[in-house]
Amino acid sequence: MANKNPLEITDKDEMRNWSRSMRAQGKTIGLVPTMGYLHEGHLSLIQESHKQTHLTVVSIYVNPGQFSPTEDLSAYPSDFLGDIQKLKSVPGGVDVIFRPRNLYDYGNKDDGVGGGVGWDQEGGKVVSCVEKSGMEHETWVRVERLEKGLCGISRPVFFRGVATIVTKLFNIVEPDVAVFGKKDYQQWRIIQRMVRDLDFGIKVIGSELVRDDDGLAKSSRNVRLSPDDRQKALSISKSLFKAKFAAENGQIDCQELRNAVIQAVHEAGGKIDYAEIVDQESLEKLEEIKRPAVFCVAAWFGNVRLIDNIEINV
Amino acid sequence: MANKNPLEITDKDEMRNWSRSMRAQGKTIGLVPTMGYLHEGHLSLIQESHKQTHLTVVSIYVNPGQFSPTEDLSAYPSDFLGDIQKLKSVPGGVDVIFRPRNLYDYGNKDDGVGGGVGWDQEGGKVVSCVEKSGMEHETWVRVERLEKGLCGISRPVFFRGVATIVTKLFNIVEPDVAVFGKKDYQQWRIIQRMVRDLDFGIKVIGSELVRDDDGLAKSSRNVRLSPDDRQKALSISKSLFKAKFAAENGQIDCQELRNAVIQAVHEAGGKIDYAEIVDQESLEKLEEIKRPAVFCVAAWFGNVRLIDNIEINV
Repeated sequence: MANKNPLEITDKDEMRNWSRSMRAQGKTIGLVPTMGYLHEGHLSLIQESHKQTHLTVVSIYVNPGQFSPTEDLSAYPSDFLGDIQKLKSVPGGVDVIFRPRNLYDYGNKDDGVGGGVGWDQEGGKVVSCVEKSGMEHETWVRVERLEKGLCGISRPVFFRGVATIVTKLFNIVEPDVAVFGKKDYQQWRIIQRMVRDLDFGIKVIGSELVRDDDGLAKSSRNVRLSPDDRQKALSISKSLFKAKFAAENGQIDCQELRNAVIQAVHEAGGKIDYAEIVDQESLEKLEEIKRPAVFCVAAWFGNVRLIDNIEINV
Repeated sequence: MANKNPLEITDKDEMRNWSRSMRAQGKTIGLVPTMGYLHEGHLSLIQESHKQTHLTVVSIYVNPGQFSPTEDLSAYPSDFLGDIQKLKSVPGGVDVIFRPRNLYDYGNKDDGVGGGVGWDQEGGKVVSCVEKSGMEHETWVRVERLEKGLCGISRPVFFRGVATIVTKLFNIVEPDVAVFGKKDYQQWRIIQRMVRDLDFGIKVIGSELVRDDDGLAKSSRNVRLSPDDRQKALSISKSLFKAKFAAENGQIDCQELRNAVIQAVHEAGGKIDYAEIVDQESLEKLEEIKRPAVFCVAAWFGNVRLIDNIEINV
């Protein structure tokens, strides 16, 4: 199939109208939500969408609602022109690039420049998820059990922001299928649960994690690693591979498996946020691996927080 | 127009499929969510829907997610056969009666009989909104500012439950328009805000409150009033009418207006939950009526909690 020139849409009504007109023609629509700075991991999500639906929408939106004031929203990398090139070159192409400007601006008279969630009214720049007064955004979707562990401990507003923006994107794009990366394992499970609990008529697909040749999990944040830290960060994937091998050969004690990973990352100079072995669906902590598990790690190298995980099916 | 025999649907996939097939034929769909035990107030919502759309779906579902363990869920009146008769006799009829059995049952193996939100596993009966462990419902939609005042003070889980079930119904029925009664003024404003904040492609209509000839606001709960309490309960609407008249004739001090209503209800033998004059949109308390306001009252007569309100546009 020749590559298509994707339609670029910024207006949410125009986006919904496009979807409805395509549906009226019997076409099915896949949505791949991204925050841009695309890499091969994202492109694999698009290819997954191609398998499922006639048409694919890729959204590019750095969501202020999922960053706390102390987090790296302003440092989040961005390269829209590069993203467009990548989306044109992905096999099969994409049909729509949905790039809204501000999904929390409802045009209220009493708002400042940006309106909505945590806009810095001085510079018109997104800074955090803090709520303000008046007529601004105040509706949040929470997946109350799954949001609490793993990344939810150090990032308490993160999954509230993710569930809310995904709900908004679902309601704007109205897709048949949405594809999420298993790199963000907890996020994927949270979206699955949300879709079940809120009865969205949408199928959620989890797409396999993609790694660089040396094993580092692909992430938009990797670009912020120094060459030295990038080398050190390999300790995460290397120790996870070892843990999986050990577990599949009978070493099912989670404390011992966790200690080995924590030690490897620590010795490489990383700072562990968490290293947990949990049930693949409920994300409850396990003491022994006797059912399908996933080993999830978050660690800092320099000022970059990386996450990685590996499924273990003994 | 001759009255139609409404289609009765209990399965959520069947409901969504019906909506999608109608939409594919170019029909627009109105949703009137109810908890059954229908009265003229509900029928006026249906007539409002007829004005807006080709087709009308009435849902009948007593939502356990919006009752706390101490509230009157088990006492909530029910008369499905009577409801059917009323829906057949309403001018223009309705197209679908959507009557799901349990919208919180996801068929999990580790659930009890009812599954989901607060099912009493002994009797298989809905009793409250309390969350349980495991794979059960855990996703909640909160409209964090608007849910806090008025009814939110004495019913802290109520609007969380309302926003969540309405989201579920929206995702199952996929309507173009949804009609809510202004009798439940705070609920109507919360749903409007939720639809804005979550970008639902749905138009929310607020339909005027309907009263009995003597002024009592129509409510499914009125049937539980003793004849004596029903007489006494007229103190609410009578004092609200007086307040509106006074405000429109220059008496704009909210404290004085509130005191008069509180005293009238108290003298009639009622117990005030709240009597507040608030901004019509933000629901923020007012000291003087200088912009569009609504006077909202909740009061107990016997073991029945009634709400009423009146808009004041000076």
